[in-house]
Amino acid sequence: MSASRSGAGPERTAAILQAATPAAWVEDALAHLPELLQDHANCEKKAASTALALMFAYPEDRALGAALSRLAREELRHFEQVTRAMSALAIAYIRQRPGRYAQGLRRAVRTSDPGRKLDLLLTGALIEARSAERFALLAPRVPAPLARLYTELAGAESRHFTVYLGFAQAAAPEQWQARLGSLAREEAQLATQPDALLRFHSGPLRATA
Amino acid sequence: MSASRSGAGPERTAAILQAATPAAWVEDALAHLPELLQDHANCEKKAASTALALMFAYPEDRALGAALSRLAREELRHFEQVTRAMSALAIAYIRQRPGRYAQGLRRAVRTSDPGRKLDLLLTGALIEARSAERFALLAPRVPAPLARLYTELAGAESRHFTVYLGFAQAAAPEQWQARLGSLAREEAQLATQPDALLRFHSGPLRATA
Repeated sequence: MSASRSGAGPERTAAILQAATPAAWVEDALAHLPELLQDHANCEKKAASTALALMFAYPEDRALGAALSRLAREELRHFEQVTRAMSALAIAYIRQRPGRYAQGLRRAVRTSDPGRKLDLLLTGALIEARSAERFALLAPRVPAPLARLYTELAGAESRHFTVYLGFAQAAAPEQWQARLGSLAREEAQLATQPDALLRFHSGPLRATA
Repeated sequence: MSASRSGAGPERTAAILQAATPAAWVEDALAHLPELLQDHANCEKKAASTALALMFAYPEDRALGAALSRLAREELRHFEQVTRAMSALAIAYIRQRPGRYAQGLRRAVRTSDPGRKLDLLLTGALIEARSAERFALLAPRVPAPLARLYTELAGAESRHFTVYLGFAQAAAPEQWQARLGSLAREEAQLATQPDALLRFHSGPLRATA
């Protein structure tokens, strides 16, 4: 499924986000490339493990299981690609504590079904949409071995956004839109407010005294 | 990497196992094909998630991370393949409680490093070796859509065995062999003693009164 055929180009993913990434975040990210790439690698692993967790939680949903299995395989391939790019750029492994973004979104997810499944799918869609937006912003600015990869990843994450959103719409045809609005407000705050740590999904760095 | 090039054909994987699968298990498995396939599908998901857990536990080991990411992608592809075969055979989803095998092996894994990493790699190798042995035993006996898949999986799991064993040998050149012997004894018991549930890695079914 190509991004154009599914109608999920960057314009569609951007439409779901309630705030654009601040220009300052792009500058901060480029000024902290090793931290950005290490967090990006972690995020790809985390994206695969989140998809697997959904497969374990809803094993009876075979269509979801098959779609998420393919999605997890793509995220793992991205993990391998960004790890290779780090090696090519001679960026050593950095032990990092996670940013506040994923944890903040997780807190907004309801703890029991049917609400939980919808929330997990919608937060999945939002994370993919934000990732697609940021890869597109970074692609023209990152060093050579990354530029092409980040362009490809912008397209891949747009497709993943469509996968998650499609299952969310099917799971709750009446409710997904209102719930998406509420989760997207939360997501926009997490992605735009000044942050203490530069991460792939963080806000721009807080000015230090 | 092909099984023949790496020297990890079925003969190598069989050599690590301290007991062959009892003939009775093969008959029990064929008589409980839906349960077998559902458990097989679960095992492929579990194999991917176990590989991911190792990637999260040892993120600084980039060679391990890259190898396990590829391995997890293969396991996910197997999950998709067996799920499609279940649909082709009109086998509905079955909610199953897990067998005792994985839990039994997990209990044998030490809880702190450096022993823990070695044990996780060696139990990974043992599970792949047992899987390869059983796919080879089942391949000539299962219905058409599965026969070719199970032949392929026997080869794939043999390769995975080599991956896990190679990292185990590198992690503890002096200790891996003795520790493998001890874990393999545990594994052989779990895979051969009469069992209450038919599972992919269970023993043959216990005679009921």
